[in-house]
Amino acid sequence: MNNFVFYSPTEFVFGKDTEMQVGALAHKYGARKVMIVYGGGSVVRSGLLDRVKKSLQESGVGYCEFGGIQPNPVDTKVYEGIEICRREQVDMMLPVGGGSVIDTAKAIAAGVPYAGDFWDFFIGRAKVSRALKVAVVLTIPAAGSEGSGNSVITKVDTLQKLSLRVPELLRPVFSIMNPELTYTLPPFQTACGVADMMVHIMERYFTNTQDVEISDRLCEGTLTAIIKEAYRLKQNPEDYGARANIMWCGTIAHNGTCGVGCEEDWASHFLEHEISAIYDVTHGAGLSVVVPAWMTFAAEHHPKKVAQFASRIFGIPESEDLEEMALAGVARLKHFFRYLGLPVNFKELGIEHPDIDRLAENLHRNKGEFVGNYVKLTKENSKEIYRLAL
Amino acid sequence: MNNFVFYSPTEFVFGKDTEMQVGALAHKYGARKVMIVYGGGSVVRSGLLDRVKKSLQESGVGYCEFGGIQPNPVDTKVYEGIEICRREQVDMMLPVGGGSVIDTAKAIAAGVPYAGDFWDFFIGRAKVSRALKVAVVLTIPAAGSEGSGNSVITKVDTLQKLSLRVPELLRPVFSIMNPELTYTLPPFQTACGVADMMVHIMERYFTNTQDVEISDRLCEGTLTAIIKEAYRLKQNPEDYGARANIMWCGTIAHNGTCGVGCEEDWASHFLEHEISAIYDVTHGAGLSVVVPAWMTFAAEHHPKKVAQFASRIFGIPESEDLEEMALAGVARLKHFFRYLGLPVNFKELGIEHPDIDRLAENLHRNKGEFVGNYVKLTKENSKEIYRLAL
Repeated sequence: MNNFVFYSPTEFVFGKDTEMQVGALAHKYGARKVMIVYGGGSVVRSGLLDRVKKSLQESGVGYCEFGGIQPNPVDTKVYEGIEICRREQVDMMLPVGGGSVIDTAKAIAAGVPYAGDFWDFFIGRAKVSRALKVAVVLTIPAAGSEGSGNSVITKVDTLQKLSLRVPELLRPVFSIMNPELTYTLPPFQTACGVADMMVHIMERYFTNTQDVEISDRLCEGTLTAIIKEAYRLKQNPEDYGARANIMWCGTIAHNGTCGVGCEEDWASHFLEHEISAIYDVTHGAGLSVVVPAWMTFAAEHHPKKVAQFASRIFGIPESEDLEEMALAGVARLKHFFRYLGLPVNFKELGIEHPDIDRLAENLHRNKGEFVGNYVKLTKENSKEIYRLAL
Repeated sequence: MNNFVFYSPTEFVFGKDTEMQVGALAHKYGARKVMIVYGGGSVVRSGLLDRVKKSLQESGVGYCEFGGIQPNPVDTKVYEGIEICRREQVDMMLPVGGGSVIDTAKAIAAGVPYAGDFWDFFIGRAKVSRALKVAVVLTIPAAGSEGSGNSVITKVDTLQKLSLRVPELLRPVFSIMNPELTYTLPPFQTACGVADMMVHIMERYFTNTQDVEISDRLCEGTLTAIIKEAYRLKQNPEDYGARANIMWCGTIAHNGTCGVGCEEDWASHFLEHEISAIYDVTHGAGLSVVVPAWMTFAAEHHPKKVAQFASRIFGIPESEDLEEMALAGVARLKHFFRYLGLPVNFKELGIEHPDIDRLAENLHRNKGEFVGNYVKLTKENSKEIYRLAL
């Protein structure tokens, strides 16, 4: 086991009707004026935005609103938000939504007190030393951004999709999580969230670090719970218990609970980011295409942990042929993704002829000669994985 | 799943040589003068205390020392510590040790700024509204006190063993956890710690709350890891990987990670507290006696979750006779405890003729007519469980 720091200071307030506490919590954490950040009209139509505003008013916390954030959030909205925050003297960001909305709010939080261009943080030209506080009302369990200090933003000019990690400043001070708010998520969005949180765990699980029994067991337990509850949810999207389990799994998949003491991988995420940067597909759907391809490649080159995954998650019988075990696990994972309505190859993702050379070029230009740790991918390896996803 | 709050703001700094960071961390969290609290001479003999002092000096953090804390820590040491802290103008408690040392430090932390008797907090006569900060260098993985806001203290006059829970004020701001510091723990102490952390999980796992799949899986995964690593440790007490896994399991067993959204039980802990209050046995050894007895009682009256435990932790085959499954699991748990050198009945604990009437009287006087939730124990039930432990 490697040395590690586990630090998850976010106060997670979980359960029915918890959005009614947003005003009291914002006040407790010192907010005087928040910026409510949101996406499309669903939080308006559902009445959630009104409930949030009412709660803020009752606690004497001021607010301004900033809507229209799209999936795969872009730098232009960040610039816009920074200007409004400065003008309105906002002191806490309050995204109401999923990962795109939260990530935009985090980028704004870092940008407001910074004199330069916020993109400097994403390209490593400057470090975040101050930021507005961030608090969250979560409506989409997927990205885990409600418990992480990460933000992923795409620059529209260059289609660079880059991530920033500042746990000490960008982790939400509190996150409100009411599973009922996720009842109206369309099945496809629900499924994309499931894929996203599963892959967050798998990026940590596929490691060469030895003596990580507790990490393995937490990862496997969380994956097992996600799969079981996703099947239930497919039957009944308003199953509170299933929604609640999925929602909490999405958080612990990415707040450090899973994967302590491991060297992490992240190749699948990076392979996917290049796809969604160019083709603007949903991140979770991109992952359900990339991950089986990555696992197929890993099954051939380094099957050990993929075989363990196959055995412990899908009950594939032990065999001396680890590659065979591993590939049987990949088949089961694909079957599960398909059952949820997710694509498992480029064609199903709506991309008939992906520009594999360009994807691999972009990937290794952004991330260097080798990508990932469980298996270290060269550019040729990355092309092979993209081809396996055809 | 019930509504819940998950809040674990402690910064856990885990791994080899991490005690060298204590000065820098104490400084980061604003300490000017700490009280180093410790138990017997082992932290002196091992050189740990010197390393801690050196690190504090290098960061310009002052300190005073307060040693001699015994297992089952007592109120008299708390009063003594409070006086010294006031005189020395200490602003952060720094226990270096295990649960007894940490719990004493927490009680002192609450007592210093309070004009009345600190015991008021433990008997519910006053609420903790201010406390000194607490930070930890952990040397015994067991109580989970390094990640909790709890303290358990025994009043020597009355032999009342009571607990206090103030997560917002008494949770350590940071906890340093170097598994190498646990190499010299005697096998019996190691085993007692294993029993303690396992029962922390079981108090949460044995619940009637429905739809807690993720909680079940995290509990089962952590228990599985503990058992596997405890076997390894029995073979080689200086196995770093095994020590590291056990140490982290002890923390997540009690910081809220396991058991989210569940109504918890805690009957076994309360049954044990009465034993160690009167007979001054090690808490973990008391638990390894009480828990199999409690589970045997539960197997008869409400076997469902005990049978699930038997199946998922010890691989007991599924059967329609849940009680039979459950009892097979209890037998396996006893076997495991015995392998570690733990007692599984009063006689092995060194108590030939326990005063069962007095234990049950004390328990229900302290905790009320019914104790526990998974099964609600009357005084007669409690006596029966104590008798099952004969």
